[in-house]
Amino acid sequence: MTEDWASRALPAPPITPLRWRGGWRDGALELLDQTRLPRDETWLTHRAYTTVVDDIVRLAVRGAPVIGIAGAYALVLAAREVTLAEPAIDVPTFFERLTPRAERIATARPTAVNLGAAVRAGLRAARACPGGNPEQITDVLLEAAMHLDAYEREACEGIARHGAAWLDGRTRFLTHCNAGALVTTGLGTALAPLYALHAAGREIQVYADETRPLLQGLRLTAYELARGGVPVQVIADGAAAGLIAEGHVDAVIVGADRVSASGDVANKVGTYGLALAADRHGIPFVVAAPLTTIDRGTVAGADIPIEQRPDDVGRYVDPACLPSGLETWAPAFDRTPAALVSALVTERGVVERPDATRIETLFATAP
Amino acid sequence: MTEDWASRALPAPPITPLRWRGGWRDGALELLDQTRLPRDETWLTHRAYTTVVDDIVRLAVRGAPVIGIAGAYALVLAAREVTLAEPAIDVPTFFERLTPRAERIATARPTAVNLGAAVRAGLRAARACPGGNPEQITDVLLEAAMHLDAYEREACEGIARHGAAWLDGRTRFLTHCNAGALVTTGLGTALAPLYALHAAGREIQVYADETRPLLQGLRLTAYELARGGVPVQVIADGAAAGLIAEGHVDAVIVGADRVSASGDVANKVGTYGLALAADRHGIPFVVAAPLTTIDRGTVAGADIPIEQRPDDVGRYVDPACLPSGLETWAPAFDRTPAALVSALVTERGVVERPDATRIETLFATAP
Repeated sequence: MTEDWASRALPAPPITPLRWRGGWRDGALELLDQTRLPRDETWLTHRAYTTVVDDIVRLAVRGAPVIGIAGAYALVLAAREVTLAEPAIDVPTFFERLTPRAERIATARPTAVNLGAAVRAGLRAARACPGGNPEQITDVLLEAAMHLDAYEREACEGIARHGAAWLDGRTRFLTHCNAGALVTTGLGTALAPLYALHAAGREIQVYADETRPLLQGLRLTAYELARGGVPVQVIADGAAAGLIAEGHVDAVIVGADRVSASGDVANKVGTYGLALAADRHGIPFVVAAPLTTIDRGTVAGADIPIEQRPDDVGRYVDPACLPSGLETWAPAFDRTPAALVSALVTERGVVERPDATRIETLFATAP
Repeated sequence: MTEDWASRALPAPPITPLRWRGGWRDGALELLDQTRLPRDETWLTHRAYTTVVDDIVRLAVRGAPVIGIAGAYALVLAAREVTLAEPAIDVPTFFERLTPRAERIATARPTAVNLGAAVRAGLRAARACPGGNPEQITDVLLEAAMHLDAYEREACEGIARHGAAWLDGRTRFLTHCNAGALVTTGLGTALAPLYALHAAGREIQVYADETRPLLQGLRLTAYELARGGVPVQVIADGAAAGLIAEGHVDAVIVGADRVSASGDVANKVGTYGLALAADRHGIPFVVAAPLTTIDRGTVAGADIPIEQRPDDVGRYVDPACLPSGLETWAPAFDRTPAALVSALVTERGVVERPDATRIETLFATAP
């Protein structure tokens, strides 16, 4: 059957992990504590940028688009702190106070491009604020954050529509980590097309890698897909290659923490192995990400910094399992070369076999 | 430097997971409870075959060679039960009583060939017992079990020597699951050459996949290598492909639960993905296994039954991580085609690029 994916109604996100309430002066950022999922849905209310940074570091909020949005709101909280502490401050002094705070937010985590980019975009908007004073500039920062928030929500819809159109006809999907509603303010990235297919009545089946060491697949993807009514089976990460080899998967679809100008993809550790297995067995390896995750300033995958999290290896397991003197090698991400990417799904369209030229063409395309 | 690996002294195993004490009439099988490692070294004393079967099922004892040995001793306990219950029984009645017990032992787990093979070998020896009575036959079964026990211990030495000779010059190894001293009565299979290289003063470094869902790498491999003084770093299973891609690994070495006549390998789930990554990046993918694990009665990998363990997926993790209504796909093993195996290391020598002909030639070679 043919669907008009461009006009089809999309479902509401099964959950949204972040919300801002109020104006710049009295407002607060509320974050769903993702470390406590699936058992508890605990909301954390932030009125200081420093605690937002802490929550980004400890992964209470995680996923490239949403840490960008959280960073943008954290910048509002930082600007408010400066503004309310010294209301009569001049603009150059204001920026002098704000800059180190902005830097602290931007560098909370290194791999996802969204965080640093959101902070830089906020600062650019603030500096462009005509004849501004600290109060006006803080308000402009809130506008910029709300704009990014809305942009990412709408980007998910574009990804959902373009991805569903490209994937329609395939029914069994394998995903890794969590790239769903919990990583953004809309339907998600990798999971957005799957929500769209499911809402259109396609009988889809999702396999979710549990995704060690932090179990985002077990804890978050299984949780949100079940909440959205999409059938999901969790597998050990090591089972993925065999699952693909046995013909149980029609496409692999993952999100991204950063896509280089050449189309190389940094994503949750374990992604590269899926790309190898998909390639070997001739099924598409699909990456879904908003344009904000594509970093034209990063030439290639090798230039993407990979965060090391040595203490994560023993996380979430029974302490009786840990040998004494445990040594680990624990990158949080890996790099998949563009040559293994069958399709890059963005809100502006699908780039098949992405490379530098095709990605430039995508950005040059009118939205 | 050139080593005479054939005559070099080998280290003692850092631990041995099984021991028989006593004669057939008063003896007992002692098993190290591997589910409690690394925290507790608890020994379980078995005087009934049924509890050995239970311990094989619940993986208190695991690893292809050692479950074969445990099965052989369990058969002694089963035969003793029959003999002592009805001392005056004739031989045909004895076998009538023994056969269903033997069947129960042989089928406790399906994938490793060693278990069924050990039981069948014991029964063959028992039936060949000249003019036997139940007591004599039970004694013959004990002899057969002790013979297998000693054979596997010596096989490890052969694997250690042949494997070390083949691998020498490489220093950084990646292994999966646990194929060390804990899977047999000697130095192990995949880890045996690494113990030999270490004992010869090579500065080796082992990366151990944590091996979800049962964490044999984290719980057992890291534990026994540390006990043996070999440097080891644990990685998430998903990190392996990136580790290889970044050039940190000189060879992958794993054990096997069953090798088909054609050289296809069933081993712990996650093995196949390592073989794909090794192939992609041009490093050897090495399988170490005693001849008892090569099943000439199984034509190809597709014929090897793969045990499903759906309840394992949530094992060893904080229960707060489990979503409600968790569905899983949970094979305990996967299959790696012979075409991806660079070398099969056995006690009788190394078969490079194994296939049916080369494996037949290995068996035809005088020990």
